[in-house]
Amino acid sequence: MSEAFTGMWQAIHEVGRSGETGGYHRFVWTDADHTLREWFAGEAARRGMDCQVDRNGNQWAWWGDPAAGDAVVLGSHLDSVPDGGAYDGPLGVLSAFAAVDGVRAAGVQPLRPIAVVNFIDEEGARFGVPCAGSRLLTGSLSPERARALRDRDGHSMEEVLRAAGRDPRLLGRDDVLDAVGTFVELHVEQGRDLVDRDHAVGLGSEIWPHGRYRFEFTGQANHAGTTAMDERRDPMLTYAMTVLAANKKARLGGARATFGRVQVEPNGTNAIPARVQAWLDARAPAADDVAELVRAVQQQASERARRDGTRLTVTAESETGSTHFDPRLTARLARQLSDAPVIATGAGHDAGVLSQAGIPTAMLFVRNPTGVSHSPDEFAEHSDCLAGVQALTRVLGELTTAASEQGRAP
Amino acid sequence: MSEAFTGMWQAIHEVGRSGETGGYHRFVWTDADHTLREWFAGEAARRGMDCQVDRNGNQWAWWGDPAAGDAVVLGSHLDSVPDGGAYDGPLGVLSAFAAVDGVRAAGVQPLRPIAVVNFIDEEGARFGVPCAGSRLLTGSLSPERARALRDRDGHSMEEVLRAAGRDPRLLGRDDVLDAVGTFVELHVEQGRDLVDRDHAVGLGSEIWPHGRYRFEFTGQANHAGTTAMDERRDPMLTYAMTVLAANKKARLGGARATFGRVQVEPNGTNAIPARVQAWLDARAPAADDVAELVRAVQQQASERARRDGTRLTVTAESETGSTHFDPRLTARLARQLSDAPVIATGAGHDAGVLSQAGIPTAMLFVRNPTGVSHSPDEFAEHSDCLAGVQALTRVLGELTTAASEQGRAP
Repeated sequence: MSEAFTGMWQAIHEVGRSGETGGYHRFVWTDADHTLREWFAGEAARRGMDCQVDRNGNQWAWWGDPAAGDAVVLGSHLDSVPDGGAYDGPLGVLSAFAAVDGVRAAGVQPLRPIAVVNFIDEEGARFGVPCAGSRLLTGSLSPERARALRDRDGHSMEEVLRAAGRDPRLLGRDDVLDAVGTFVELHVEQGRDLVDRDHAVGLGSEIWPHGRYRFEFTGQANHAGTTAMDERRDPMLTYAMTVLAANKKARLGGARATFGRVQVEPNGTNAIPARVQAWLDARAPAADDVAELVRAVQQQASERARRDGTRLTVTAESETGSTHFDPRLTARLARQLSDAPVIATGAGHDAGVLSQAGIPTAMLFVRNPTGVSHSPDEFAEHSDCLAGVQALTRVLGELTTAASEQGRAP
Repeated sequence: MSEAFTGMWQAIHEVGRSGETGGYHRFVWTDADHTLREWFAGEAARRGMDCQVDRNGNQWAWWGDPAAGDAVVLGSHLDSVPDGGAYDGPLGVLSAFAAVDGVRAAGVQPLRPIAVVNFIDEEGARFGVPCAGSRLLTGSLSPERARALRDRDGHSMEEVLRAAGRDPRLLGRDDVLDAVGTFVELHVEQGRDLVDRDHAVGLGSEIWPHGRYRFEFTGQANHAGTTAMDERRDPMLTYAMTVLAANKKARLGGARATFGRVQVEPNGTNAIPARVQAWLDARAPAADDVAELVRAVQQQASERARRDGTRLTVTAESETGSTHFDPRLTARLARQLSDAPVIATGAGHDAGVLSQAGIPTAMLFVRNPTGVSHSPDEFAEHSDCLAGVQALTRVLGELTTAASEQGRAP
């Protein structure tokens, strides 16, 4: 089992990898993505699993007939953030295939169909909307909105789908969802909870509520050399103060606030900017805390904009309430995994989207020694990854041979 | 004269103009630039002027034989900053042609050769070094450094020159400089000095010292949702504080400081940045003031970097001392122009580069009602532009018929 896992790891190690930073650039419908999709189809074929692609491009490798329903589905995603790490996403897909290998090697006779899924465009790195593949699948992202999303080069998702040989009219809720009885996603931890608890593997309790907000600061472009300081309307000043305000507010409120993406126009060294657009990523344990954080930051930014002679508009691009994974399923798996710890996370996942759609869902996390993620420094010990595979194999064996989650009494 | 000027204005009005903002995108060796260069050659040909291109791509339209030396040269540039205005540059080139028309119409018999020049790549919008054409001409920018400069797409100037059909090995000081006896550049004012003084046209006394400094803030990329605030090393925070510090320092010190260009890596909404690069444009009446400004900003930024767990390196990309235009020439032209006011400017110009190379140089400025420049809002009244043409025509008539500037007693 560990050999197969290691082999899969090596097979995709160089795909979309930067020679300069060692980070990954695996964006939806790019060459790297196509290569990974072909790899996925190959892994399915090698196991005699039937690889199907749903209306939205998510790949499903089936062992057993999905028409039987109540399937146990494992998986994650293969795309990355810009200059991302090797583990976020792929670890869950590779572990899922390895778990299938594991239950087969153990001679398990599944009582229901099993699938490994590769959700497309989880990071939203290209079109700005995270979990686009799973959200389209469950219907929580409308096909109209998705088709109109544009990447940084101005290409719409509709155009990109056509160029990739896909029919954009197909996008939308897919009946394959009705076949899913239980979904389990294994993922590298993106914090250090498991380090502190001294466990290689844990389970997820919930995803914090979070949102993305576009702050658009508008001023007046002008010459950097000739414009007196008191005649400027410089949106960069308002932006800078807003970054510091958001950081302070998050620190004091036990929340998380990040400005990680900025676009400046005209972005010339000797030009005062006409416009600064920046995206606030805000998360907190409760939805009210997120709303209060954004409200407070916006207020401080607006006050500063008045002083700077600039204007501010704030647009919520996505907002997600808190997501609790299935507590009964999670408790059952925790017992099975020798009382693995159950931890919350600030990151969104396809598992969260499926859980919100009413599917019994659980997450497994693998320890990350530094907690670093979305970076070439993202790391997990190989032995911890194998412990994750082992845990997922036990979970799969349990779920496919025990009575149905759906059929059980509450 | 005014009709010819207006006709030239209309001929280039749409070249490189954004339909969205009305601003101009005229970068060196792009389609827009090629179109403007063809237009320049056509204007020269229409006047029977001999259009020559020097080693660096600067265009010279000659009336008379440059070999005679001690030429009177008028001109400016045709390129723009990103989303720039219509006047910065082109006004000086069009006015130069119109002034040639004017002295011819007046039957002036020039005692020495006359040229109109279009200096290439004045804004440095593509390769980051302003006045690249005039600096290569005078030898103050080395051909080796110029060839290695890269645009934002990673293409070197050497590659871009080859693609444009130019031989990059030609770059360097050009003997045409030896033929230049006097240089006069007319330019739209980029502040409001002439508004306050109630004059349509003024003369330049000096260019403030200025420099461009690249601030590179390095932190650690990480997941925006899962990384606790106190475990971050976020370079965006250090950058934000530096923007505010530079602004405050410039305000208090009577200087000018601008962060107008930023590059963030990976620049993802849900990723704490690994790196923020930003360019400080700093100017002040004295070189010591610029140095003190940069020193103070760097010190504050470094202190903040220690708090943020980030690192800072500062690189001076260009530094120019103060440039005084020829005071005797300027006083002579001011008298001739009915005691036009003489004003300083914070902007660099090709005239400054030629003046530093020891060529008697003067500048004329045309009133700008709002002072806005490097923006689609840049403007000058048509009547003020014509007043500028008239002034430049008088200057040209005076300089080409009076005794040589070079030959006069000090």
